[in-house]
Amino acid sequence: MKAIVNDSFGGPEVMRVASVPEPTPGPGQVLVKVVATSVNRPDVVQRQGNYPPPPGDSNILGLEIAGTVAALGDGVDQWRCGDRVMGLVGGGAYAEFSLAWPGHLMRIPESMSWEQAACVSETYITAHLNLFQFPGLLDGQQVLLHGGGGGVNTAAIQLCRALAPSVKILVTASTTKVQRVRDLGVDHVIDYQQRSFQEEVAKLTDGRGVDVILDHIGAAYLHANLKSLAVNGTLMLIGVMGGAKSDLNLAQLMVKRQKIAGSVLRPRPVGEKSAIISRFASEALELFSDGKIIPLIHKVFPLEKVVEAHKLMESSGHFGKLVLIIDSEVSL
Amino acid sequence: MKAIVNDSFGGPEVMRVASVPEPTPGPGQVLVKVVATSVNRPDVVQRQGNYPPPPGDSNILGLEIAGTVAALGDGVDQWRCGDRVMGLVGGGAYAEFSLAWPGHLMRIPESMSWEQAACVSETYITAHLNLFQFPGLLDGQQVLLHGGGGGVNTAAIQLCRALAPSVKILVTASTTKVQRVRDLGVDHVIDYQQRSFQEEVAKLTDGRGVDVILDHIGAAYLHANLKSLAVNGTLMLIGVMGGAKSDLNLAQLMVKRQKIAGSVLRPRPVGEKSAIISRFASEALELFSDGKIIPLIHKVFPLEKVVEAHKLMESSGHFGKLVLIIDSEVSL
Repeated sequence: MKAIVNDSFGGPEVMRVASVPEPTPGPGQVLVKVVATSVNRPDVVQRQGNYPPPPGDSNILGLEIAGTVAALGDGVDQWRCGDRVMGLVGGGAYAEFSLAWPGHLMRIPESMSWEQAACVSETYITAHLNLFQFPGLLDGQQVLLHGGGGGVNTAAIQLCRALAPSVKILVTASTTKVQRVRDLGVDHVIDYQQRSFQEEVAKLTDGRGVDVILDHIGAAYLHANLKSLAVNGTLMLIGVMGGAKSDLNLAQLMVKRQKIAGSVLRPRPVGEKSAIISRFASEALELFSDGKIIPLIHKVFPLEKVVEAHKLMESSGHFGKLVLIIDSEVSL
Repeated sequence: MKAIVNDSFGGPEVMRVASVPEPTPGPGQVLVKVVATSVNRPDVVQRQGNYPPPPGDSNILGLEIAGTVAALGDGVDQWRCGDRVMGLVGGGAYAEFSLAWPGHLMRIPESMSWEQAACVSETYITAHLNLFQFPGLLDGQQVLLHGGGGGVNTAAIQLCRALAPSVKILVTASTTKVQRVRDLGVDHVIDYQQRSFQEEVAKLTDGRGVDVILDHIGAAYLHANLKSLAVNGTLMLIGVMGGAKSDLNLAQLMVKRQKIAGSVLRPRPVGEKSAIISRFASEALELFSDGKIIPLIHKVFPLEKVVEAHKLMESSGHFGKLVLIIDSEVSL
């Protein structure tokens, strides 16, 4: 089958199209013929050699798929060949065929295109998990989302708008993205290149702070995040792009009854991930079939242009998702 | 009325018995004639000048009371004069009369003595809040409790035994207290003066770590605590006796999906505290009336011996609670 391989780690150019053996579904597994996938930030980190796949998962890049069920391993009865599915994989999405666990797949709503379906699993489930499953953001609360225009960020905005319409949404964005984030219908966009987000959050919340922060920066933002967080608030840490090591004042954390929660999706055990996906599907999937949420796609590339797609991701010039089309005959 | 006052901050000897004006209940408040109170570690810190009462609360020491309702402020209809009550106060328990919010009081089960009732509110509610209300310890999980023999520690052990009997309980204790903690029916006692608790927890959990840690040490234990914590585990931080400033590896926290949660009880708003106490009462109060939990009392002092009681608390020579009797006529 056709797949993207990288013989070494490094820049986008280490990736190339190759022919590799098609995987065979083991007991309890599903083989999916992949129509489309999308590029996520962790793909870049993995390509650079800093985010190896969990043991047992494919070395091929790519964390989410949209396609059709092609074959079933022993004991799988939730799906039938030909079903249109989208879902999470531990690796292997940049390929014509990918192995998945049945509980990690969802039926694609009829109203959705393959391109759209390829954008649901990684970002929306990450946003749903880290806002609504825990810490359990409540309508009427206030949230700060970092990284305006990124995949998880726009997914988080859309989910908040749909599931908790009275949540006050503050978003940090770079100067060039401020207006586009504003157009998504958030309450305040903070241009972090022009102003201190900590000071802006203090002003915008009358010094109270927000109830939940979704952060992928880590150390560089830790102090300002905790100062921007209300009493009883939760800092959800889903990335450390700004460093991992920081100092922390535990007395302050205690007196303000704050929580810092680290969270990653990919390495979780199969059953835990199934439970997360199942909860996402039951609470949010209808929003997609009803058209209340439409994934924001920046650009669609054929798989062969993966190097270009990664370069765009690394330049942060995108706003919304970058999709890779693997099977253009189905797609068109 | 008779009360303990301290004209300055410092050692136990700054406290003396004095006559002070009796407080008057404002709207929505209850005046309680205090029969007994107990000494809690925060009383010592407050006496030293490092833990001022929340705004609006009495400067007199003491966080919990057992007594009878003596007068009602406007609008209080939950209680009647003469009711036997126990509960939390923001300050003022070391006195003949104390003001309380009606939602911060609970009816004393008939089977309980005044001395026992004076030991319920601060320690058991703290333990219940930080194990069962959040993070929601589940039966079958594993917990590490620091400070064997302390008030919160023994309360936590008893609550775990009663509410989640299959929880595996690991406790750290000083050499002299190991046997007495073991006698409380825990699974493992780790003598932290002889061994590294981190190594012992690793051995006792086959390297997995525990699901919840209840910690009052803070910085000095932070690294060892996080290494002793399982994937998805929660470190509940309720004190910083071992320092407040530490460094933290956020990547590690993220990859292990761990949470650090700061928690204090005293400064919470009236309504929030009422909700916590109400949940404690509905989930745990029956255990006291049924005699399934009997507070562990180390020693009972008349109020006049408060200096002696504080000296004992500071020496950490106690095992269980130190009670102060204020109205010995009722008590005897």
